[in-house]
Amino acid sequence: MSDLSSNAAIPSAVPAEVVRGWDNEHCLHPWETMGTSDPDRDIAAGAEGIYILDPSGRRFIDGPGGMWCVQIGYGRKEMANAIAEQTMRLAYHSPWAFASEPSALLARRIAQMAPGDLNTVFFATGGSEAVDSALRFVQFYNNLRGRPEKKLIIAREKGYHGSTYLAATVTGKERSRSRLDIESRLVRFIGNVNPYVRPKDMPVNAWCDAKVAELEQAILDAGPENVAAFIAEPVLASGGVIVPPPGYHARTLEVCRRHDVLYISDEVVTAFGRLGHWFASEDVFGITPDIITCAKGLTSGYLPLGAMILSDRLWNEIASDDREHIMFSNGYTYSGHPVCCAAALKNIEIIESEGLLEHVRAVTPHFQARLNNLSRHEIVGDTRGMGLIGCVEGAAAPDLPEEKRLAIDSEFGARVDAKCDAMGLIVRPLINMCVFSPPLIITESQVDQMFDILDRAIGQVQKEML
Amino acid sequence: MSDLSSNAAIPSAVPAEVVRGWDNEHCLHPWETMGTSDPDRDIAAGAEGIYILDPSGRRFIDGPGGMWCVQIGYGRKEMANAIAEQTMRLAYHSPWAFASEPSALLARRIAQMAPGDLNTVFFATGGSEAVDSALRFVQFYNNLRGRPEKKLIIAREKGYHGSTYLAATVTGKERSRSRLDIESRLVRFIGNVNPYVRPKDMPVNAWCDAKVAELEQAILDAGPENVAAFIAEPVLASGGVIVPPPGYHARTLEVCRRHDVLYISDEVVTAFGRLGHWFASEDVFGITPDIITCAKGLTSGYLPLGAMILSDRLWNEIASDDREHIMFSNGYTYSGHPVCCAAALKNIEIIESEGLLEHVRAVTPHFQARLNNLSRHEIVGDTRGMGLIGCVEGAAAPDLPEEKRLAIDSEFGARVDAKCDAMGLIVRPLINMCVFSPPLIITESQVDQMFDILDRAIGQVQKEML
Repeated sequence: MSDLSSNAAIPSAVPAEVVRGWDNEHCLHPWETMGTSDPDRDIAAGAEGIYILDPSGRRFIDGPGGMWCVQIGYGRKEMANAIAEQTMRLAYHSPWAFASEPSALLARRIAQMAPGDLNTVFFATGGSEAVDSALRFVQFYNNLRGRPEKKLIIAREKGYHGSTYLAATVTGKERSRSRLDIESRLVRFIGNVNPYVRPKDMPVNAWCDAKVAELEQAILDAGPENVAAFIAEPVLASGGVIVPPPGYHARTLEVCRRHDVLYISDEVVTAFGRLGHWFASEDVFGITPDIITCAKGLTSGYLPLGAMILSDRLWNEIASDDREHIMFSNGYTYSGHPVCCAAALKNIEIIESEGLLEHVRAVTPHFQARLNNLSRHEIVGDTRGMGLIGCVEGAAAPDLPEEKRLAIDSEFGARVDAKCDAMGLIVRPLINMCVFSPPLIITESQVDQMFDILDRAIGQVQKEML
Repeated sequence: MSDLSSNAAIPSAVPAEVVRGWDNEHCLHPWETMGTSDPDRDIAAGAEGIYILDPSGRRFIDGPGGMWCVQIGYGRKEMANAIAEQTMRLAYHSPWAFASEPSALLARRIAQMAPGDLNTVFFATGGSEAVDSALRFVQFYNNLRGRPEKKLIIAREKGYHGSTYLAATVTGKERSRSRLDIESRLVRFIGNVNPYVRPKDMPVNAWCDAKVAELEQAILDAGPENVAAFIAEPVLASGGVIVPPPGYHARTLEVCRRHDVLYISDEVVTAFGRLGHWFASEDVFGITPDIITCAKGLTSGYLPLGAMILSDRLWNEIASDDREHIMFSNGYTYSGHPVCCAAALKNIEIIESEGLLEHVRAVTPHFQARLNNLSRHEIVGDTRGMGLIGCVEGAAAPDLPEEKRLAIDSEFGARVDAKCDAMGLIVRPLINMCVFSPPLIITESQVDQMFDILDRAIGQVQKEML
């Protein structure tokens, strides 16, 4: 083992332009565009704490926390040690034939954290596979319960649930589906729940009523006997950090219960501390869903891991002695990978021993106050967030010339991103928005640094665009 | 960093029965049965070289090499070091926003190894996601080429391609589909290509003719304008190590080319040395497919990683300057994960520096001779294999009483497995078969140990069952 105290500061032997050349020539990245010119992607060369380092060693605050995932920050020696030790002890075993301590212990820990009787854990390697497995389980469940027609999934506009074919099918972000096929017979979409887009004169509670009613109407329209499940992120993350109106979660769960529709809470982003709790479903929103899917923060992104967590009730409803020969034939070579599970266990231990859940709850009011303060800029249409997630959305006043309005609607995110980048902050631009979800270890003064930069960037963009 | 030289020998602090209790209570394993009694899974406590260790420290030769994946063997300190170093340097970055050296360099290495113009690499976390992504790419490709009706996939009975909904859809193992839904409108299956099941008086070359004709007929029946791709493992692994007849690969590729049908070679098992070459498609079977999917041996199972490798021709056919706004909206949080890619690079380096490809080619004749020799047992119906993969299939003579024949057809695998287990060898039982694919580092004398045990086990089972 070489000295692990030397870390992100080690310069790479390979020049950045060479790496970029290899990458342009050989790597197909997620959401790659079909243009013929090479993308000019930034090179990540190292990372420590809340910072990503570029090849010159320059540090950038990692606003998106990787991809909503790096809860404990980068360059953690305890993680490297735990990962290396498990690699030496038992780097792999077939999850078909064997059990082992890391996955068994992690499943137990997750069951303890998860609400209600959600005590049965199926491991996947990420959120897409967790969602795909959850939806396949729902199909299997209804087949075994003798109601094979009960298969429709209700999902929401702006929801993101992954990019396997089945996970993409229930994803309601229109840009994720362009030119790609989905299985439309399996899904019905209901509208955007964002209070920001409600009619001007509608109170938020009336918006909530309308959104709850919309779910129930969708179930009734399809026929409850045909509807298997409702899938919902507690906070719609990559759809633009959309926080449904107060009361929405509990009331939509009631609707589902009333019509014997399962509730899948997709906590890939919200679990493991992002909102100050292990899981948000119960502790933040007061609901006990039937299935929870999670990933990302489970390992802080250090290694790939995802899970779906089943209510014991569901399993018990379909298991029986005379079904010994029936199998839930779903699973992956890397389900319950011992090294990935060891990383998750260490990650949980760090979150606990450093009190990061409490830290998130403590720093959230300041984070959200700084976020809300951005709305004083005329070019900002909305700021919204919860816990350590935030979004700032650009909007043009209706009396602006159309050209300017179109520019703001399409370029606000990219322009703010470019300004922030120049000042040492990464944000994630999403058309007319920027979203951020920094590592949970971020201090109050680092929160200030981050929002100081954002504030300045938005001011500059406003000057250019208005 | 604790001392990495202490490895698999470290006893776990948690007793095996406690681990098994947690596992039974909280872990849903792949292909879990729906009975109510707890499965009595073996506990893997450690591993080194070609051995898995149980909690008492007893060593078992790992016949299946994990799950067809642990090419370089267990407990490799170089791997633990490479993984820990990358963890410290840069444990994660978003593959949307950034490029980095591990994934760029690995993509370049894979492109160099892959046949023809297969130079564009999309990373996933395993075989299922790689196949799911390949099939989604094919749909996207035909949508962009203006032929949205060209979507059918031809797949084969006994083929295994993963367990996301879409990967499971093209999987032809009947047991993988029981009670689970697939998207049958997207797939047509053609029959088992195993020469062992051909009519008794049919020469192998006539069997090959028939199988090639069957593919062409399936394309013609569906209409070539509706058929997008043929997906095929070079050797059908978990379907029972089925080696198609000589000439089959090249001739099926010709059929595909004739009808403008893409050829997806699913090399999740066969790539990275299993057949003595980086990829088997060209070096073993003389074909250059349009897409290759791989996983498993890519990291020797040390960390989750998969890839689909695209022919540049396909990409160039659909990329154009005026498509800058169109995206292949597919990808995962953990696509190109830097730590997993660093593990793959070290794995490839080890395979190269230790000459493991040459070693596999050198030891294969002995391995296959010992395998073939098992057919002298009356209870053995077939032995087959290639490189370091083998299968022994039990079969009952037609003149045996029906009871005995049924028992052999259903229990041969499990019984041989139990006998081997008692003698320190893990094999993978598949109904009436056992399959094995040991770590590529296995020596000739270890091959002898393995087959000595198998030989004795089969002899004992024969005595019990005939």
